[in-house]
Amino acid sequence: MINAIGREIPETIDGYGPVKPFAGAFKAVPDMCRRAPRVKTVRPGESKVLPSLEEAFRRAGVRDGMTLSFHHHFRNGDGVVNMVLATAAKLGLKNLKVALSSVFPVHAPMIEHFKSGVVTALDTNYMSGPVAQAISRGVLAQPVILRTHGGRARAIECGELKIDVAFIAAPAADDYGNISGVLGPAACGSLGYAFPDAEYADCVVAVTDHLVEYPLAPVSIPQTRVDYVVKVDSVGDPKGIVSGTTRITKDPVGLKMAETAARVIEAAGLIKDGFAFQTGAGGATLATAHFVRQKMLQAGVTGSFVLGGITAYLVDMLEKGLFKKIIDVQGFDLEAVRSIATNPNHLEVGANFYANPFNAGCAVNKLDAVILGATEIDTDFNVNVVTGSDGMIMGGSGGHSDAAAGAKVTIVVANLLRGRLPIIVDKVLTATTPGETVDVLVTERGVAVNPRRTDLRDKLLAAGLPVKEIDELKALAEKIAGIPTKIKTGERIVAVVEYRDGTIIDVVRQVEG
Amino acid sequence: MINAIGREIPETIDGYGPVKPFAGAFKAVPDMCRRAPRVKTVRPGESKVLPSLEEAFRRAGVRDGMTLSFHHHFRNGDGVVNMVLATAAKLGLKNLKVALSSVFPVHAPMIEHFKSGVVTALDTNYMSGPVAQAISRGVLAQPVILRTHGGRARAIECGELKIDVAFIAAPAADDYGNISGVLGPAACGSLGYAFPDAEYADCVVAVTDHLVEYPLAPVSIPQTRVDYVVKVDSVGDPKGIVSGTTRITKDPVGLKMAETAARVIEAAGLIKDGFAFQTGAGGATLATAHFVRQKMLQAGVTGSFVLGGITAYLVDMLEKGLFKKIIDVQGFDLEAVRSIATNPNHLEVGANFYANPFNAGCAVNKLDAVILGATEIDTDFNVNVVTGSDGMIMGGSGGHSDAAAGAKVTIVVANLLRGRLPIIVDKVLTATTPGETVDVLVTERGVAVNPRRTDLRDKLLAAGLPVKEIDELKALAEKIAGIPTKIKTGERIVAVVEYRDGTIIDVVRQVEG
Repeated sequence: MINAIGREIPETIDGYGPVKPFAGAFKAVPDMCRRAPRVKTVRPGESKVLPSLEEAFRRAGVRDGMTLSFHHHFRNGDGVVNMVLATAAKLGLKNLKVALSSVFPVHAPMIEHFKSGVVTALDTNYMSGPVAQAISRGVLAQPVILRTHGGRARAIECGELKIDVAFIAAPAADDYGNISGVLGPAACGSLGYAFPDAEYADCVVAVTDHLVEYPLAPVSIPQTRVDYVVKVDSVGDPKGIVSGTTRITKDPVGLKMAETAARVIEAAGLIKDGFAFQTGAGGATLATAHFVRQKMLQAGVTGSFVLGGITAYLVDMLEKGLFKKIIDVQGFDLEAVRSIATNPNHLEVGANFYANPFNAGCAVNKLDAVILGATEIDTDFNVNVVTGSDGMIMGGSGGHSDAAAGAKVTIVVANLLRGRLPIIVDKVLTATTPGETVDVLVTERGVAVNPRRTDLRDKLLAAGLPVKEIDELKALAEKIAGIPTKIKTGERIVAVVEYRDGTIIDVVRQVEG
Repeated sequence: MINAIGREIPETIDGYGPVKPFAGAFKAVPDMCRRAPRVKTVRPGESKVLPSLEEAFRRAGVRDGMTLSFHHHFRNGDGVVNMVLATAAKLGLKNLKVALSSVFPVHAPMIEHFKSGVVTALDTNYMSGPVAQAISRGVLAQPVILRTHGGRARAIECGELKIDVAFIAAPAADDYGNISGVLGPAACGSLGYAFPDAEYADCVVAVTDHLVEYPLAPVSIPQTRVDYVVKVDSVGDPKGIVSGTTRITKDPVGLKMAETAARVIEAAGLIKDGFAFQTGAGGATLATAHFVRQKMLQAGVTGSFVLGGITAYLVDMLEKGLFKKIIDVQGFDLEAVRSIATNPNHLEVGANFYANPFNAGCAVNKLDAVILGATEIDTDFNVNVVTGSDGMIMGGSGGHSDAAAGAKVTIVVANLLRGRLPIIVDKVLTATTPGETVDVLVTERGVAVNPRRTDLRDKLLAAGLPVKEIDELKALAEKIAGIPTKIKTGERIVAVVEYRDGTIIDVVRQVEG
C-alpha cells in the first residue's frame, strides 16, 4: 500500500505485524486507554536494595522473550545497558527485546547479543555506530522499530510498547528508589526520557553508583514506581555523558546559513515577547541561537522558553534574561546539569510533556520556531535523518518529527551538498519527518519555502531573503555535484520508521554487500 | 458479618455495594491494574482556556450521575467547590457524586445541593461542620464513603473511585494547564492531594484566579493531564487557606503529655541520625515536636525527614538543620508555603507518594515515629477520629490510619477525659485506625503500650516512663467521670469507613433526633 506521502509499505511486516500507514501529521486520533500496569504493594520495613543485577533479574522475574527498557541520558558514556545485557547473557536468557531510547557507539557489545540470540529485537529513537551498521546489514531477523522521542512516550503510555522490566541508569538513588539526575559522578541533568518507562513498566530497577540517604532530593523519578535498587561500581563514563562545552561552528558557510535561519525567524514575525524556540546542539543549529539572540537583544525582546536538548549556550540565554524558562528533557553539557540543579526556572520534564502527541498537550505544541538538520530533503520537503548516503542507518528522528509538527515555523538548515552529494532529492531514501510539517529549507545558496506556506513565503520575500523554489536549489546542487546515483538496497526490511502517532511513515531496507 | 477487629458490618450496604471486610492492616493484597483513562490528543494551536465554568461543564460533557472531584488544599477558605456546584445546580444537573478530599464548614452550601438532588453522593477523607452534621442526621440516602488520604489515592489509582471530571482549584495556572501551588493570592503550598485526581480523571479542569505566562514554574500538576483552564475572580479566601502561625499549646497538661510522648520516642531508641517523624498541627502533637527537638539537640542528632501537614515549626527545624528534608503533601501556614517555594530540600509530593499502600512504596513506610490524636480509643487500641461523643461525624482519618500503619512507633496522645467523658472505652463508637497499628497511648496520667509491643514496653519501663495497662487508665478516667452512657444511634448507615486498603473497618449510623 501507499501512505500519505507516497511511500510504498507492505500491509504487514514480518516481525512487526499489521501496518497502520501514515495518513498525515495530525490525522491519527487516539482510540485506546492508557497502559494499566498491575498494582503493587510494599509493606513498611521491606527493603528494595538488591546485592546484584543477577538478583534483580531473579526478583523481577526476567524471562525469555521479555522487553527490557533503558534510557539514553548517559549517551556514549553509558555503562548500564552493556552491564544488564551481559547479565542476561550470563543467565542464559534469549529472545529479549531491548527498548533503548537511543543507541550509541558504546553499545557495540549488543551486536554479540544479537548474534547469540540473547537480544532479538530492538526499539529505539536514534542509533549511530556499530549497532546501527550491523542492523543495516541485517544482523536481526526482526525489523527494528524506529520511533520519535514523543512517539516512544506515546507508545509506552498507550500500551503499544509494553515494557516488562525498565533498568534505569540512575546518577543517584536512595534506598527506596527515588532517583535524581543531578547528583553523583555520572550526573546528566534531566532524566526525562526515562519517565515513561518508570511510569508504565511492569517492574522498575534503579541501577546506580551513587546511593544517597533517604529521601533523595530533587526527585526525578519517584519511589512509588521503583521496585528495586542495585548499587554498581560505575554506571558509566562521565566524559561520554556530558561534554564540557558545546561550541558554535566557525565554518563561514555554517555561520551564513545560521544567520539566514535567524532572519527567517525574524521575517516570520516571531521575534517578540513570548518567543519560544528549540534548536539542536550541533554546528549551524546552535549558531542560529547565537544570531537569534542578537535579534532578540536588538528588539529588546524576552522569550518565554527554550526547549529540547539543553546546552551551555541556552543556559546563558536563560541567565542573561533572554528567555524566562528552559524546558529540559535532556541536557547535553555540564552547564545544563548545573543549571537544572539550581535554577527554578530550568524545568525537568519527561518525554510525554516534551513531545507525546497523545495527551492533553505537549510542549512542542507551544514552539514558535525550531531549527533542525537533515541528511536529505525531497522536493515535497520530506526529511530523512535516518539513513546516510550509503543507505546505512546513522541516526533517527529523536525529537525531529515532534518539534517539526509542533512549531509554528519549522526550519531545516542544511548545506546544499553533504559530502559530495546533493541533499535535495526527488524522493528521500527514508522519510522521517513529513514535508507538511517542514516550512522552510535554509541552504547556503538560498531559502525554499514549503508551498503550503504562501503566507510565510510572502513575509520572507518582503524581508529580502533569497527565496528560491526547492527545485531551483536542487538544480543548483546537481550542477555542482551531478545527479546522485540511486542507492541500491535489498528487499528485506531492517527497520520500520514509525511516525510520532504510531503510523508507519517509511521502512529501511537492508544494505547490500 | 464480623471483621478482623470485631465490628459487625452488613455483607452488602445499600448505595455502597458488597463489603470487603477489614482483615488486618497488611492482609489485603492488590489484585487489579491501575485505572486507564482514555488517551487524548491536543493539536498545536488549540486553546484550553474557557470563558466560564458553564462552558467547562459543556466541554467536559458533565452529565447527571457523574463524579466530580476536588481537593481540600484551600481548606476553610475554598471557593471552588461551592462555585462549581452552583454551576451544576444552575445547569440543572442531578445525582452528582462529589469526591472532595476533605469537607470544611465553608462547604455548607452543599447541603442545599443534597436536598435538591443535585448532589446525592459524597466521598471524602474528613469532614467537619454543617455538612458533617447534616450527613450524620441522614440528609443523603446513600452512605458517604470515608477514606484515608492514602486510601483515596489508592482508590483513584486502582479504579475504585472513578472521577469523571476533576475541578482543580489552582493558586496559579498557565494557559496550557500547568498548575502551581506556590504562586498567586491563594497560594497554599503543596497540591499533593490533587495529584491522583489530575492523573486519573477522565477530564481535568483547572480553576484559577491567577493566570500566568506559559510556562509556569514550578509545576505541581502538568499540562499533559489538564484539559481546560477557567479563570475566575477568586478561588477562595487566603485567610481560610493558610494561617499566619500555628502555636504550640500553652496548656500545662498538654505540654506534659507532649513531653512524655517525646520521652517515649527517645526510650524507643529512635532519637538518632536519620530519624523520621510525623506530627500534626494541633495542640499537644505540635508541642511534641518541640520536645523532640530538644532531645535531638541534646543528642546532636540530625533527622532525615518530617512528613505530613507542614507548619512553621517544622520549617524552622529544617532550616536549623535538625531535619534534612521535609516531605510535604499539604502545608498549613504561610511559612510552609514560603519554604516549599524556595527550599530545594522541601519536597512537594502527591497523596500516592505520601500514603498510598498499593504502589512500590509510600513515604509513611519510612517513618520512625508519628504522633496522632484520638476522640476515643478502646482497650484493643482501636482509635476513633470520625465521630464525637454525640455520635456526630466531626472528622475522619485523613492521614491518621496511613501514618499509624507506616511508622515504626505510633503514639496516640490524648487527655484521659474529653469534655467530661473518658476517652478510653471498651469499644470505640467508630473504629478508624486499627489497634494493631497503634503502639502507645500517652495520657496525662500514664502511658499504655499495645500488648503486641512487649519490646517497646520493656524499653519504656527501663527509661522510667509511667507505663500502665490501658484498663488501668480506663478505670482511672471512669473513677473521675463515671462510665459514659452508650450513644444511641439509629440503624441506617450514613457513612462507610474504608480502611486505607479498601476494606471496610466500620460504619457510621445515623444520629437520632
